[in-house]
Amino acid sequence: MDGANGADGEAFPDKFENLTRVGPGTPMGNLFRRFWLPALLASELTECDGTPVRIRILCEDLVAFRDTEGRIGIVSAYCPHKMAPLFFGRNEDCGLRCVYHGWKFDVEGKCVDIPNITPPDTYEELKEKASIKGYPAREAGGMIWVYMGPKEHTPELPGMEWLDVPSEQLHVARWLHRSNWLQAAEGEIDTSHISFLHSELDPPSDGASPTTPAPGKTPEMTGLKLARDGAPVITLHDTDYGFVYGSRRDLDDAYYWRISQWMLPMWSAIPPPIDDFVGNGRAWVPIDDSHTMAFCYRYRTDRPFKQSEVDMLDSGMLFPPRTERRPYVLPHGYKIDAYVPTASFENDYFIDREHQKTKNFTGIWGVNEQDRSLQEAMPNMPGHPPGIVDRSTEFLVKSDLPTMSARRILTRLCKQLEQGQEPTKALESTQYGVRAISMISDIEEFDDFLKEYGQMGFAEVPSGTDSET
Amino acid sequence: MDGANGADGEAFPDKFENLTRVGPGTPMGNLFRRFWLPALLASELTECDGTPVRIRILCEDLVAFRDTEGRIGIVSAYCPHKMAPLFFGRNEDCGLRCVYHGWKFDVEGKCVDIPNITPPDTYEELKEKASIKGYPAREAGGMIWVYMGPKEHTPELPGMEWLDVPSEQLHVARWLHRSNWLQAAEGEIDTSHISFLHSELDPPSDGASPTTPAPGKTPEMTGLKLARDGAPVITLHDTDYGFVYGSRRDLDDAYYWRISQWMLPMWSAIPPPIDDFVGNGRAWVPIDDSHTMAFCYRYRTDRPFKQSEVDMLDSGMLFPPRTERRPYVLPHGYKIDAYVPTASFENDYFIDREHQKTKNFTGIWGVNEQDRSLQEAMPNMPGHPPGIVDRSTEFLVKSDLPTMSARRILTRLCKQLEQGQEPTKALESTQYGVRAISMISDIEEFDDFLKEYGQMGFAEVPSGTDSET
Amino acid sequence: MDGANGADGEAFPDKFENLTRVGPGTPMGNLFRRFWLPALLASELTECDGTPVRIRILCEDLVAFRDTEGRIGIVSAYCPHKMAPLFFGRNEDCGLRCVYHGWKFDVEGKCVDIPNITPPDTYEELKEKASIKGYPAREAGGMIWVYMGPKEHTPELPGMEWLDVPSEQLHVARWLHRSNWLQAAEGEIDTSHISFLHSELDPPSDGASPTTPAPGKTPEMTGLKLARDGAPVITLHDTDYGFVYGSRRDLDDAYYWRISQWMLPMWSAIPPPIDDFVGNGRAWVPIDDSHTMAFCYRYRTDRPFKQSEVDMLDSGMLFPPRTERRPYVLPHGYKIDAYVPTASFENDYFIDREHQKTKNFTGIWGVNEQDRSLQEAMPNMPGHPPGIVDRSTEFLVKSDLPTMSARRILTRLCKQLEQGQEPTKALESTQYGVRAISMISDIEEFDDFLKEYGQMGFAEVPSGTDSET
Repeated sequence: MDGANGADGEAFPDKFENLTRVGPGTPMGNLFRRFWLPALLASELTECDGTPVRIRILCEDLVAFRDTEGRIGIVSAYCPHKMAPLFFGRNEDCGLRCVYHGWKFDVEGKCVDIPNITPPDTYEELKEKASIKGYPAREAGGMIWVYMGPKEHTPELPGMEWLDVPSEQLHVARWLHRSNWLQAAEGEIDTSHISFLHSELDPPSDGASPTTPAPGKTPEMTGLKLARDGAPVITLHDTDYGFVYGSRRDLDDAYYWRISQWMLPMWSAIPPPIDDFVGNGRAWVPIDDSHTMAFCYRYRTDRPFKQSEVDMLDSGMLFPPRTERRPYVLPHGYKIDAYVPTASFENDYFIDREHQKTKNFTGIWGVNEQDRSLQEAMPNMPGHPPGIVDRSTEFLVKSDLPTMSARRILTRLCKQLEQGQEPTKALESTQYGVRAISMISDIEEFDDFLKEYGQMGFAEVPSGTDSET
Repeated sequence: MDGANGADGEAFPDKFENLTRVGPGTPMGNLFRRFWLPALLASELTECDGTPVRIRILCEDLVAFRDTEGRIGIVSAYCPHKMAPLFFGRNEDCGLRCVYHGWKFDVEGKCVDIPNITPPDTYEELKEKASIKGYPAREAGGMIWVYMGPKEHTPELPGMEWLDVPSEQLHVARWLHRSNWLQAAEGEIDTSHISFLHSELDPPSDGASPTTPAPGKTPEMTGLKLARDGAPVITLHDTDYGFVYGSRRDLDDAYYWRISQWMLPMWSAIPPPIDDFVGNGRAWVPIDDSHTMAFCYRYRTDRPFKQSEVDMLDSGMLFPPRTERRPYVLPHGYKIDAYVPTASFENDYFIDREHQKTKNFTGIWGVNEQDRSLQEAMPNMPGHPPGIVDRSTEFLVKSDLPTMSARRILTRLCKQLEQGQEPTKALESTQYGVRAISMISDIEEFDDFLKEYGQMGFAEVPSGTDSET
Repeated sequence: MDGANGADGEAFPDKFENLTRVGPGTPMGNLFRRFWLPALLASELTECDGTPVRIRILCEDLVAFRDTEGRIGIVSAYCPHKMAPLFFGRNEDCGLRCVYHGWKFDVEGKCVDIPNITPPDTYEELKEKASIKGYPAREAGGMIWVYMGPKEHTPELPGMEWLDVPSEQLHVARWLHRSNWLQAAEGEIDTSHISFLHSELDPPSDGASPTTPAPGKTPEMTGLKLARDGAPVITLHDTDYGFVYGSRRDLDDAYYWRISQWMLPMWSAIPPPIDDFVGNGRAWVPIDDSHTMAFCYRYRTDRPFKQSEVDMLDSGMLFPPRTERRPYVLPHGYKIDAYVPTASFENDYFIDREHQKTKNFTGIWGVNEQDRSLQEAMPNMPGHPPGIVDRSTEFLVKSDLPTMSARRILTRLCKQLEQGQEPTKALESTQYGVRAISMISDIEEFDDFLKEYGQMGFAEVPSGTDSET
């Protein structure tokens, strides 16, 4: 396996195009279109008849708006008449009216007014023909979700626990990740990297550069203190929703276990602290082949977040990173409303080489900023849209089992879908009610661990120490 | 016709490439090269031996300069020797001298000095061979015009009325329009859009968002008060210079008529106020396939403009928009001297959503800014240079008769030119002395209107109310 | 010859692609890879375990670092595991450690640690396979050099005199030149342009624009006073290292001779003042097909530079230009650490048209800024990477003999290399110990000049006047 792209005796495609490209008609684009996807934050679209929000998902330019009755529309970004951008439109009287000639569309994309002509006898058919794409939208868990697939296959929302907690127990955010979705998502199911990329250094006693990951200083990152073993033993089981895997790290007198779920098509659940359950995870929604809209959630089931906890999250130290909400122009010319990270490729993520020698492994401050510094600066695959890492010479090892498994599962589902087989099992809502956990235990085998602490659902939550991968 | 790209029973090409692409050798590029085109403002090139001006027209990089004797040169942007940019050249002693090796070119592009060699016996032939493209240039109507076509087909300047009025009765300007020329020009022959895009709102009486266009507040835009009927009846007649069309809007007890001309290859004459003749119109000169140099003129025949009128024009409320004169780098690498609009795609044209709810239809301030907000943000046609709108799904209706007619006429002229038939009739100068008008009348039919008020020339100008489409 | 791309009866290839493209596997890329090339300044990499420097040479993304023992590594920019950028890595304990998963590479690119796996039995082979490209690096003459060719063909460093002078007698610098390397290098072997581009004007006596090059005002540019004859007689001899050529300019009562060397693959030695030997020259190292890293050296053999001399060099008046050291993002996405010139294409190199009329030929201040103003703004060759001048219509004359000869020699060496013939003779180190000179003399023929003042090596240095081409 080491140094090859294959795993478990099953061959991977030697091209990653099928997994990275997400436009209409692509294999992975088709698979994504079977799932409800986060599209924007509910907090961005609270006002009836308010300003539309420009988004792009799976290479489709869209606008989201909330109409007079509070309904949410996620529709094509352009009026079909002369292709004027609907963002500048008037959101009024239960529809978005193009300002060029006054054509109007409801939340479903149905054309409801063509005021620059005398209505012909065929006016109703004409409006029907002039309708634009409108995708079903739902609000849940502080996010607005969209389903962009065939109507007849519309699933339920995934039954994730945090979709039902009170809002004061939930914190959600989104931000722009400037790479293809796959290399971002792969960083999420990569437990070994937290022992390096996100580690803090021991106070250097002798002035020499410490090379060993060391305990973190922030209360929220105490899990990293336990993750000093950088070569965890990883065991992985496929599930219908994706997979669950356990990583076992040596402590002096026990094991530090982290159990995580990767959920289709691109969710990652992140283990909480060992002694205080705080659920959290991320979703990686492709904007296009070169950009990703990252979403994070964090929730408690027992009590509201304290202000100090919210402040910590808003500081950008973990997830989300520090951001500024502002428009961002994509290479093909559409401008989206984005949360653009402050620490960026342009400013080298504010790397501080002195801190890298004395404080933490990278010299970069925030955990997500550490991730992005690498994932956004990988070499581009020649001949493809920028932002897709050139994997032609990548060198995978045992610790990449989750990455290889995700590729394998996605490849299988894409192939099945091309052959007409819908991912029906993956779409069953209830199985998404899983929790990642972490624990100190002397159990040696993942299967024994599963037997002891519950099946993959982990209905009962053991204790744990909070951390972020 | 509705929802199709055809009109009048004649088929259009299903690709618009022939009409949008303008480089040397393209059908539309060839057609444009039969006409005199505005190239820059006369006010930019007043000084003999002054700074050259960088322009690009029809995908050709050019510099314009005024020589020691006051002659105007519009020549290739590069010295043929080693391709050094002539913009940095020395404009001196009746020629532009490249600063690399001192080669010198006159206003016709003729090489007149090669000082870095000992003149050989063949010096005169050598200089002849080293000459660069130089296009005939003329100054008229406050603009500098260029003719880029075959010498033997050089026409007269179009006989537009404003080319002969005293300078204090004329106001001209130019600015950068960041889209293909065709979608810009099409917005000019689209009378129905003024009832929407450029309309002001009634003062909202009850706090609700008004959806009906309403009277304007500015003196210059009173024509829009009359254009509340958004579904005008349009009648169009082909002419040798292009077409003339009348649009009839219902008033309570009469009709509001607007008569406009579209003149080859891309001029639009705009109706003046109903009771005060102020001629005005625009030209859309392609820079390349992605950018357009827009020119506007405005003139009176009776008196100089008052300072308040000039101030209003310079404010950017109508045409031209607010601009800053500065260099602008085009994607292929040539830098042009442009009037770059202040309200732009980057700043969402300063849209004010509160104003959109209470003041005018768009929330955008200037009339041209309203146009550009839509035309510069249309979706690009994949696989083509950016800035060309993707028309593959456009949905034309009756009100688009002028747009469809312009495409039809241009397509015909392009085809004829490809078959060797010059657009001789279109180039007859005298027919361009037409005026657009507007009028309140109870005449119902355009042909009756034409009989009553003159043939297409409209030598006698009826009263009208000023407006801008 | 005039007006053609051929010279001396020998045909040139009608495409310049072979000489301009430098990526791996291209003919010119292969030839460049036979020579030691300057990669960065030694002053940028003084600190052991300091910050890596991002460079790109011949289309390869690289990082340079100095390890704990002071050794220099120039290695691939990406970790082979998941392609994370090594720039963010930890430079510690004799290697550069990727911060993603802690993989570590020594100065030769050898992988020496894979800490995120339990070492397998095959650990040594695994690390061997996980090694990255590492190129031999040397420090000499204030520069760090790299050899990117086949190990078995590694030559000695070129035996240039300045590589051995004490550091206080040497001044070196580098900067970003934003064009293909060839048009930059060609400007260096073009003696006639100094009579124009770099000339100063006579004080205008009558207010008219002077058109004749005139004496310079700065002490360092007095050579230009002598170079008023813009049509020098040029004689050129091929050598194994490239060529030597003499240019003879008429003075009233004698000749002004400038003897220069062009040394493979892209060095130019520049004549010193006639009465004070100061060696100087430049190298043009391709970053990619669109960008060049220019290096300049200047040295004395007799004494340290005075502070006033260093100040003059640091002022940017000659070489290097004024620069700011900062990251620069290349079009393909890699960010390099560059010395970015302050006077640039964006600001028209601070051209001052009043100065152009009264002070110097260009109105641009610095000598290199004058060069770049032309070379960076030449028209791009369609269908190729930007920055490569379109030579399809260039019009060469007698004064371009050195340019034509360099193309001819490079073409020959590229062809020979493709046929398996290494440029062995060109790589002999000792022949690079040549000096350019300038002199006032009544000798008429270059061959007589060579007989009188030494063979091509010019071991004894006659007097001369300093100048910069």
